[in-house]
Amino acid sequence: MERFTVDYRIIAPSADEAGARAAAIALEDTVEIPRDVVPAGYVEDVILGRVETVAPEAETAGCWRARISYHVDAVGREFAQLLNVVLGNASILRGVRAMAITPDPALRERFPGAGFGAEGLRRLTGRAQGGHVCPVIKPQGSSVETLARLCYLTARAGADIVKEDHGLANQDAAPFRERVSRCAEAVARANAERAAAGETGRALYFANIAGHGDQLRDLALHAKAAGAHGLLLIPGLYGFSALHALSRDPEIGLPIMAHPSHLGPYVLSPDTGYAHGLLFGTLMRLAGADITVFPNHGGRFGFSVAECEEIVAACRAADGPGRAILPSPGGGMSLDRLGEMRRHYGDDCVYLLGGSLLRYGERIGEAIREMRDALDARPETVSG
Amino acid sequence: MERFTVDYRIIAPSADEAGARAAAIALEDTVEIPRDVVPAGYVEDVILGRVETVAPEAETAGCWRARISYHVDAVGREFAQLLNVVLGNASILRGVRAMAITPDPALRERFPGAGFGAEGLRRLTGRAQGGHVCPVIKPQGSSVETLARLCYLTARAGADIVKEDHGLANQDAAPFRERVSRCAEAVARANAERAAAGETGRALYFANIAGHGDQLRDLALHAKAAGAHGLLLIPGLYGFSALHALSRDPEIGLPIMAHPSHLGPYVLSPDTGYAHGLLFGTLMRLAGADITVFPNHGGRFGFSVAECEEIVAACRAADGPGRAILPSPGGGMSLDRLGEMRRHYGDDCVYLLGGSLLRYGERIGEAIREMRDALDARPETVSG
Repeated sequence: MERFTVDYRIIAPSADEAGARAAAIALEDTVEIPRDVVPAGYVEDVILGRVETVAPEAETAGCWRARISYHVDAVGREFAQLLNVVLGNASILRGVRAMAITPDPALRERFPGAGFGAEGLRRLTGRAQGGHVCPVIKPQGSSVETLARLCYLTARAGADIVKEDHGLANQDAAPFRERVSRCAEAVARANAERAAAGETGRALYFANIAGHGDQLRDLALHAKAAGAHGLLLIPGLYGFSALHALSRDPEIGLPIMAHPSHLGPYVLSPDTGYAHGLLFGTLMRLAGADITVFPNHGGRFGFSVAECEEIVAACRAADGPGRAILPSPGGGMSLDRLGEMRRHYGDDCVYLLGGSLLRYGERIGEAIREMRDALDARPETVSG
Repeated sequence: MERFTVDYRIIAPSADEAGARAAAIALEDTVEIPRDVVPAGYVEDVILGRVETVAPEAETAGCWRARISYHVDAVGREFAQLLNVVLGNASILRGVRAMAITPDPALRERFPGAGFGAEGLRRLTGRAQGGHVCPVIKPQGSSVETLARLCYLTARAGADIVKEDHGLANQDAAPFRERVSRCAEAVARANAERAAAGETGRALYFANIAGHGDQLRDLALHAKAAGAHGLLLIPGLYGFSALHALSRDPEIGLPIMAHPSHLGPYVLSPDTGYAHGLLFGTLMRLAGADITVFPNHGGRFGFSVAECEEIVAACRAADGPGRAILPSPGGGMSLDRLGEMRRHYGDDCVYLLGGSLLRYGERIGEAIREMRDALDARPETVSG
């Protein structure tokens, strides 16, 4: 019987205790009843999580790696229940961190991953090579006119993706429907001018889908009808289930960029939550994100180089789940770091630049062209 | 100009550094651009977060309390954006924990809180006094018949609330729509028999709303049409925005019990996320939960007595936000702890009992009656 597996990091003083904790996780996240009352047959044989291995971590005394297998029947077909099984109640246990998930064929079939992925995005932008330039439209509190103007100027100057700030929700200063319609128009006008000028490629406008939780599909359909080419969504606020639902919706059919807001506590403590690569890489792929934003090392947030590399590796792993997706490091980046970032992250990457672009005012297009140049400069050029 | 405030615990080596970090939070969760490019006027004066005070924590060196005020215009009318402002990107900063929120009148008007609350629930159950007995229907993997049978037996024996396990989603063993219809019928039959026998009160059936993220409203409407009296929802998987949307939906109009699955990392580290009372009390009230489930101290999870008391105090605070709601401690409770729990939590509380009830098999009704007796025993009776 095929099962998918989840690897956990467990803090425990002894091998026996680690084994007991692993068995507790296997119960907690499936049947959630004492072991002695688990009904024999289907529930015990199929539904109940099964501890496959428990071994000490080489690096750290008192740390253990446990592998627990689960059957897809405990999940069903909805992403929220997958997370219930992987780390639902176990998220409240101290000293338990989910490190990796290895899907079996049944899980892969039910959660096939990104609709576009890294390759699909390249087809959509028309950029055959090089990193993707992605300005962020902000700040909230600006009028629709101001935001649409930034969209036009950055798209016209050659941006590959024009992304709304995740804080542009549905506030009175720029209500969602009006803002998205006007910003999509602005990007369409810029793209038409680029085409008329004989430029290859076009800018994709990613609208931030933010409203009441039960309106997300309607808002996404509005964005599509208005001309948006992609969606920005915050799974830390709307749930990975919303990401999964939007990505699988045949009427929507747009690429999705996932934003990390509100997800920090899942990774910041080494003893709880998820490993960085699992949360921002593997789970984003499984849920259907095409681009995953995360805070770059050395910016305003405290991710380490190794943690960022783990995320990128999970986004690009050739064996899935689903299509490889694009990492998108952000969080206080500036133009003078772009060359270094390109050498680190390579071309299959969405390079975000937000607030620092505003220093250029009406000349923001110059900043976009500088971003392009920095990403296209080859190492020999840089050192030359 | 009225603003609401959020208190943060900040780890910093000096007062200057603490002030700088507070200013960074105020930027991060509103405009998310460098301070020097914040547009003058409305964005700077209204939208930008404002550091009101920063003071050392008496107890802990290197810890500071910062109070930051925000204007409701930065939020709009949707709950997800409220959390973006309170702790969105700041959730990824190390050493930042949201401790308390003090709503201003504008925020209270936009987020009026629970539709029923503690008093409303007492009207619905018809139980004039005493704690609420709440068996949990489980485990997943059981057939619809088995689950409906448990609903009938526990409701017939006098349960106040019959709650589905949060792991009963939409799996093939008991698909959502069929399960909810049959369980609602079973509870209705039990209630009819109770009424015919002249018993006061009735059991409320709370269906676990779990499916694709965009189906929650449809599933809730199905549950209501089938006869469910309340909804169970996991905000850690579907978002607090889903909780808020369901609680404010005039077509639904059912009380909501919020389950803590997947929320652990927000409270487990003292340096990130939310204080226990803020997450499981204040935010649940603001979002519209009527009952908030949390892991009792001394069970399978590691919450302390003080953390549980903080949650209960936040649920019951007389000054809101919104109606007082019912705390519901769970997580491995057993009959022999109920007397102690009642003395600790009092009568305005939903007492959960799950897996251990299954030991009674077909005699599970006896366990419900023992729960009732344990909750109704007064201290003098217990010691007599």
